[in-house]
Amino acid sequence: MDINKINGLIAAPFTPMYENGSLNTGMIKNYAGKLKNDGVSGVFVCGTTGEGMLMTLDERKEVAEAWIEEQTSYFRVIVHVGTTSYKQSCELAAHAQDKGAFATGTMGPLFLRPSRTEELVGFCSEIASAAPDIPFYYYHIPSISGIKLPMTEFLSQAAKKIPNLAGVKFTDNDFMDMLECIRLDDGKWNILHGYDELLLAGLSFGVKGAVGSTYNFMAQLYYKLINCFEKGDIDGARNYQAMSIKVINILVKYGGAIVSGKALMKSVGIECGPVRLPLKNPDKTMYDKFIEEIKNTGVIF
Amino acid sequence: MDINKINGLIAAPFTPMYENGSLNTGMIKNYAGKLKNDGVSGVFVCGTTGEGMLMTLDERKEVAEAWIEEQTSYFRVIVHVGTTSYKQSCELAAHAQDKGAFATGTMGPLFLRPSRTEELVGFCSEIASAAPDIPFYYYHIPSISGIKLPMTEFLSQAAKKIPNLAGVKFTDNDFMDMLECIRLDDGKWNILHGYDELLLAGLSFGVKGAVGSTYNFMAQLYYKLINCFEKGDIDGARNYQAMSIKVINILVKYGGAIVSGKALMKSVGIECGPVRLPLKNPDKTMYDKFIEEIKNTGVIF
Amino acid sequence: MDINKINGLIAAPFTPMYENGSLNTGMIKNYAGKLKNDGVSGVFVCGTTGEGMLMTLDERKEVAEAWIEEQTSYFRVIVHVGTTSYKQSCELAAHAQDKGAFATGTMGPLFLRPSRTEELVGFCSEIASAAPDIPFYYYHIPSISGIKLPMTEFLSQAAKKIPNLAGVKFTDNDFMDMLECIRLDDGKWNILHGYDELLLAGLSFGVKGAVGSTYNFMAQLYYKLINCFEKGDIDGARNYQAMSIKVINILVKYGGAIVSGKALMKSVGIECGPVRLPLKNPDKTMYDKFIEEIKNTGVIF
Amino acid sequence: MDINKINGLIAAPFTPMYENGSLNTGMIKNYAGKLKNDGVSGVFVCGTTGEGMLMTLDERKEVAEAWIEEQTSYFRVIVHVGTTSYKQSCELAAHAQDKGAFATGTMGPLFLRPSRTEELVGFCSEIASAAPDIPFYYYHIPSISGIKLPMTEFLSQAAKKIPNLAGVKFTDNDFMDMLECIRLDDGKWNILHGYDELLLAGLSFGVKGAVGSTYNFMAQLYYKLINCFEKGDIDGARNYQAMSIKVINILVKYGGAIVSGKALMKSVGIECGPVRLPLKNPDKTMYDKFIEEIKNTGVIF
Repeated sequence: MDINKINGLIAAPFTPMYENGSLNTGMIKNYAGKLKNDGVSGVFVCGTTGEGMLMTLDERKEVAEAWIEEQTSYFRVIVHVGTTSYKQSCELAAHAQDKGAFATGTMGPLFLRPSRTEELVGFCSEIASAAPDIPFYYYHIPSISGIKLPMTEFLSQAAKKIPNLAGVKFTDNDFMDMLECIRLDDGKWNILHGYDELLLAGLSFGVKGAVGSTYNFMAQLYYKLINCFEKGDIDGARNYQAMSIKVINILVKYGGAIVSGKALMKSVGIECGPVRLPLKNPDKTMYDKFIEEIKNTGVIF
Repeated sequence: MDINKINGLIAAPFTPMYENGSLNTGMIKNYAGKLKNDGVSGVFVCGTTGEGMLMTLDERKEVAEAWIEEQTSYFRVIVHVGTTSYKQSCELAAHAQDKGAFATGTMGPLFLRPSRTEELVGFCSEIASAAPDIPFYYYHIPSISGIKLPMTEFLSQAAKKIPNLAGVKFTDNDFMDMLECIRLDDGKWNILHGYDELLLAGLSFGVKGAVGSTYNFMAQLYYKLINCFEKGDIDGARNYQAMSIKVINILVKYGGAIVSGKALMKSVGIECGPVRLPLKNPDKTMYDKFIEEIKNTGVIF
Repeated sequence: MDINKINGLIAAPFTPMYENGSLNTGMIKNYAGKLKNDGVSGVFVCGTTGEGMLMTLDERKEVAEAWIEEQTSYFRVIVHVGTTSYKQSCELAAHAQDKGAFATGTMGPLFLRPSRTEELVGFCSEIASAAPDIPFYYYHIPSISGIKLPMTEFLSQAAKKIPNLAGVKFTDNDFMDMLECIRLDDGKWNILHGYDELLLAGLSFGVKGAVGSTYNFMAQLYYKLINCFEKGDIDGARNYQAMSIKVINILVKYGGAIVSGKALMKSVGIECGPVRLPLKNPDKTMYDKFIEEIKNTGVIF
Repeated sequence: MDINKINGLIAAPFTPMYENGSLNTGMIKNYAGKLKNDGVSGVFVCGTTGEGMLMTLDERKEVAEAWIEEQTSYFRVIVHVGTTSYKQSCELAAHAQDKGAFATGTMGPLFLRPSRTEELVGFCSEIASAAPDIPFYYYHIPSISGIKLPMTEFLSQAAKKIPNLAGVKFTDNDFMDMLECIRLDDGKWNILHGYDELLLAGLSFGVKGAVGSTYNFMAQLYYKLINCFEKGDIDGARNYQAMSIKVINILVKYGGAIVSGKALMKSVGIECGPVRLPLKNPDKTMYDKFIEEIKNTGVIF
């Protein structure tokens, strides 16, 4: 099996829903079109931003299929298959491979969280083996999963048990661990940086790809950041990072990146509808204030 | 609807599995028989001890049905329907009601955990309304769910939104909050104590019912504790509590109450088989040392 | 050396200060008189409630001396000598012994906190040996010190290194650990319960003495609780506990037990003045609302 | 008052002690000489690495004086005056100014930690005003102090209350907050980066100065890193960062940067002696293994 690394910006798409909460997968064609226009190199679907675990398995399959429809060799689909049960995750992983996804990924188990690396490897190994012909990514996101184990150790142990291991979606600010992962085994592993607000730090530590929710609506800003960085214009890159942080602070203030990010999509032409329980949608007044503040930054529109 | 409180000891049963990891629901008849013999007043199925979220929805339904088969007016079944998705939980709740369960319960959402009581109430309300004709319990277990909100506040708010609210399975050592819950609204709510090792503290604060994993194999010891307590013999009750703690310390030492507790069931005549990923079964050497230490306590056998 | 256990209620006194923040040790004579009238069996001075570490060493010595002046065989003084530096603590401990204190105690080091029991024992051993002729108590309070090590293990190890070890002031809700401490070495150790709001749970687990801040102003209520408990009237004891919790909830609401508790002392005849930085005194409006709410409980005045 | 920023690498020196634990300030002249030779631009004395709060106030003054003796316009001394008591800290701050230190700094109070920015500002304001003629730095180090408040907010509020505010020693990996601090008020504040292992990330986010413990023995490596960065050779900078991380991993493995770092100083010609309680010195066997591993890296000697 040939595992190709993904580089560039990968969006973690919101899952479009109708006002009544049911899926609106018909919107995904346009959504993918917008992302492709923005130069985004792929999507990580049904993850945290995509409200993955708030959906049923059937819904997740439907969403995955709709994105895979839009897949090209320049726009690849990683399907997040994380659930609390490895059996359910295996079902989703097999489906993803069957439908032609580029890769699968899973966060660690939220229920009865492992405290030792070998337990985490055991869990991931089972899931990765259910989609053995496509790459597998571990989704490291301690702030959501509560699992804070060193990824250097994870990669070292998992390399022996997971033949299709591709790398880690690294959503943590332990850059020391991240640098070691990037350099491990002569740079063999695909380390995808997961904090949009710290992309510049990631680049300086050597990441080549990143997954994030704000790449849904301001990928072009981040590509400018990357261009500056690659030309050696760190000051310029820092300016773009500061602009992204200005927006992210507003997202956080209005309910977090999922709730307010999803609401924002309408303004860039992709109506994504409401979020699901236990998340809470902003009311009209709050929404208007939020959009006003975003406008005032001048970053997006 | 008439909501009766459950009193006495309620077991949180392990889910019997074959060596290959598939369900062994055929064992549940004997299991229920043993618990009834021990005077246990009910079961809380597919919860933490029962590895609920490690199973598929179909498996959970199968397990729930098998326990409901054994239900009597003295041995009642509460079905834990917690998942990360309220839709999945509603499916399980509707099934439980349909099959005749006494009640449903759910822990808070593990994915995108609410930080405010109203969000938690919103989530629970949706699930409770899917089994509207039977009582609903919120399962408060911050050490697993990561949701640490005051239950006094939860009950006050939920009382207005959840007509079939029965109470809380309270697995936390915030006895101050617990006492207030017990006394709230003139003692209306059914507060089930969730820490076997602290049952005596719970009794002194006024609980009348308790749910736990060690009631699977040493309920008789706890009934002696309760008898002493009710007679005013606190010293005697404390001795029994100390014996229970001696056993629990060994369970913790050998992998925790689920892993080692499930292994222990064989010794009391109910073979429950292995635990599931991400949990890890003890090897033979460890198992033998574990059983030896349990034997040396003289508490169980 | 003969180590006598302290039983009954021990107040953790507030440190009286003038409006300008300087010490008002002249108030301590009356303060001790009030506590003696209430049947309090001693004081734990310069601890958390006493703002111990917010004072200079000279101030702490002055406060300790003033309390030792009031010491009798029925009203004994434990001096908290905890600082971030064992050298400073040794100085305070030697002073306490020299002036005739009944005992010393220290919480674990707040700076560069130990993560292993042997390190904590090493730190305490050095301090205990600076006041070798009087008993030494370890002050276990993870919520303040951040040191959460099992006390059963601490006592077992410290017994071999600290000849004058008397026991533990146990301010944590791990009652499982507490019960084991109480029963360790045939009940040799003096375990002083530190959560006023959970006194009933402590009694049911076997504590005979307790240290707390609300014993400063409602000791009589807690003695009624204890009387009920000893007569086997658990319902009665629970009612008194519920009354104490009602008051404590208000203290918490208005800035916490130190800030609002200290403000409350004026109403029971002992003006204790303001708290020190980094604590923040309530303004007049807040203070009035606070006293109003306390009055409405009918518990204290 | 003219507040000059400090740039470049600032060492957080270990405090030299004799085998019996008493101070060996006679060593400081040589120590300063070595640091000056390495191009280090100053020292942050009696901080975390310097075991500041493990010393008495008199000891801290002695250490501060010895370093101030070595001060030049290219080698400046910031004296950490943090204690649990603002009164003690004021005494140290006044002393530092009196003896001619360049600046003072304090971490937040470890005892009764503030949870709101205004309380922290109040505490710092009092201390800064005790050395009003020299700059004041807040020492942000949540992993030690337990105080995790946003520094952007701290600077905004403190700017109005602390006339001699110079900036923040920022020892946290919240680079989003750090970037905002750097850019706040047109770059007015001196933000000193505190994680040696993440220096490259700090540089990319715009820091010009850094304080750390490994600048005591491998400053030259970090200056090479900085040179590469400034020339736009990010790959080169990353290589040096990876070398630093290799060493830091070994320090962590052998007891942490203070314990093992202090032991290491002997090998670079500055015997610093043992650490103090509650820290624990490595035994001979462990020390030898540690030095062997450091040697094998080839980074230092």
